[in-house]
Amino acid sequence: MEKFLAQEKVAIDEKLTEHITQLNAPKSLKDSMTYSLKAGGKRIRPILLLATLKGFGKDLNKGYDIACAIEMIHTYSLIHDDLPAMDDDDLRRGQPTNHKVFGEALAILAGDGLLTYSFTMVSQLQNVEDHIKIKLVQKISQAAGPKGMVAGQVADMEAEGRDLDLEELQEIHHRKTGDLLSLSLECGALLAEASQEDMHILTRFGKHLGLAFQIKDDLLDVEGDENVLGKRVGSDATNDKNTYPKILGVEKAKETLTYHLNEAHKLLAQVDMDQTLLRQLTNYIGERIN
Amino acid sequence: MEKFLAQEKVAIDEKLTEHITQLNAPKSLKDSMTYSLKAGGKRIRPILLLATLKGFGKDLNKGYDIACAIEMIHTYSLIHDDLPAMDDDDLRRGQPTNHKVFGEALAILAGDGLLTYSFTMVSQLQNVEDHIKIKLVQKISQAAGPKGMVAGQVADMEAEGRDLDLEELQEIHHRKTGDLLSLSLECGALLAEASQEDMHILTRFGKHLGLAFQIKDDLLDVEGDENVLGKRVGSDATNDKNTYPKILGVEKAKETLTYHLNEAHKLLAQVDMDQTLLRQLTNYIGERIN
Repeated sequence: MEKFLAQEKVAIDEKLTEHITQLNAPKSLKDSMTYSLKAGGKRIRPILLLATLKGFGKDLNKGYDIACAIEMIHTYSLIHDDLPAMDDDDLRRGQPTNHKVFGEALAILAGDGLLTYSFTMVSQLQNVEDHIKIKLVQKISQAAGPKGMVAGQVADMEAEGRDLDLEELQEIHHRKTGDLLSLSLECGALLAEASQEDMHILTRFGKHLGLAFQIKDDLLDVEGDENVLGKRVGSDATNDKNTYPKILGVEKAKETLTYHLNEAHKLLAQVDMDQTLLRQLTNYIGERIN
Repeated sequence: MEKFLAQEKVAIDEKLTEHITQLNAPKSLKDSMTYSLKAGGKRIRPILLLATLKGFGKDLNKGYDIACAIEMIHTYSLIHDDLPAMDDDDLRRGQPTNHKVFGEALAILAGDGLLTYSFTMVSQLQNVEDHIKIKLVQKISQAAGPKGMVAGQVADMEAEGRDLDLEELQEIHHRKTGDLLSLSLECGALLAEASQEDMHILTRFGKHLGLAFQIKDDLLDVEGDENVLGKRVGSDATNDKNTYPKILGVEKAKETLTYHLNEAHKLLAQVDMDQTLLRQLTNYIGERIN
């Protein structure tokens, strides 16, 4: 799995930049879009999509463009979330945020550009049938749109300074994080032309994986190693953020993490595919140290 | 034509609101999206789409959803353009701008939501074949994206305080305004399954129409009646904006307007359709007083 992760991360990094480089658009706009795409991260969404495709025995080449499209949407959401009017973050992954480098106007437009271009990419997929492309447009726009990620961001903003219960917190995370993780699995399954049943199980698997991912994130902010994480720990508590450790306590949050990982594994076992990679990625999400 | 304009404007106004009302999204987000959708305007893009469809003898019901999707994209662009980091406008059509009422964060998210939801709408069109839906996604995302509208906004920003020549100004307007006007005609023709040749002519027609629309806008800011316009005249000059009257002088700008209207009429005459409505709309764009 390490090899798969490392190799495909490089492939995705390269392809993301290529897509923007060839655009006939103002240089400043392309620079701003590329800056945030290059800021990197784990590329967990593209990796999940590619691992799903591989698990169904399909050629990874079929998945790169749509994996890039989803990563572009993820990147757009980070750029807009970091804006002064939103979370007002100066740093992301140790680097100045987009608006700190390019100014607010260009940051807003780079986000708009990435979001819009991701749909151009879906519409231009090679070797994918039109009815699948349309399902991809539908799934992606729903996960990212006013019922999905945008709703999650609004709910998160409105929850600031108010103590949430577990159900409210889960709902926000389903929409903010879970939706794009599930989406990656579903898009992989769609491209692989998986059965309706497998698709349905993978969606449920994705929801548990998304929650596990978020709980682990919250726990790392409490117990992680600053040097490995590349960011300060304890910032959630300082900012009085609603997190799993805050609502449940650290021990119960860890139990909940284990619960979601177990449920994910149980569901994955029911999918008619080579489950090896997704199983390893599930463990990785639970055990990661950054 | 007046009847068509009035009747279809009401239909579009109603349908736009309906689409948002039925969304399972946070109330504040829906309120913010609806506020700007209701702020109205001439609905020129939906009207052009419907007029194209009618000219090809098709049922208007086939066009409402995609007409609404394009109007949502237009509305998203206005919300983001008005933001303090962009044009910093407090008023639009005499009403407070979105961020003045809902705050910057929600205004950004309402824009993001409208843009993303427009693609959900295309993916869910009824009685439209998949290969046409995919072409619609491609055309819309290209016209609105980093090669189209977003590029136009960036170029416009970067031109501030610098004197443009005519070619530069046209390029910006092609991208900022022209693209969505042409797009409306092309989407209508696509839905009507018009021939490649008619599509091609209508695209060129749309470019002239878009430029005519913009020149008329600039001229109204010089010579219009404040009471009819509902806004101050002379604001372009005050803000030292690059406009056609500024670059060409008023008389030459009027000649250029006439030139583009004539070219539009010549092209339209070549399209195999009932051209009546589009001909009247072209005249309306040149003669409008607000």
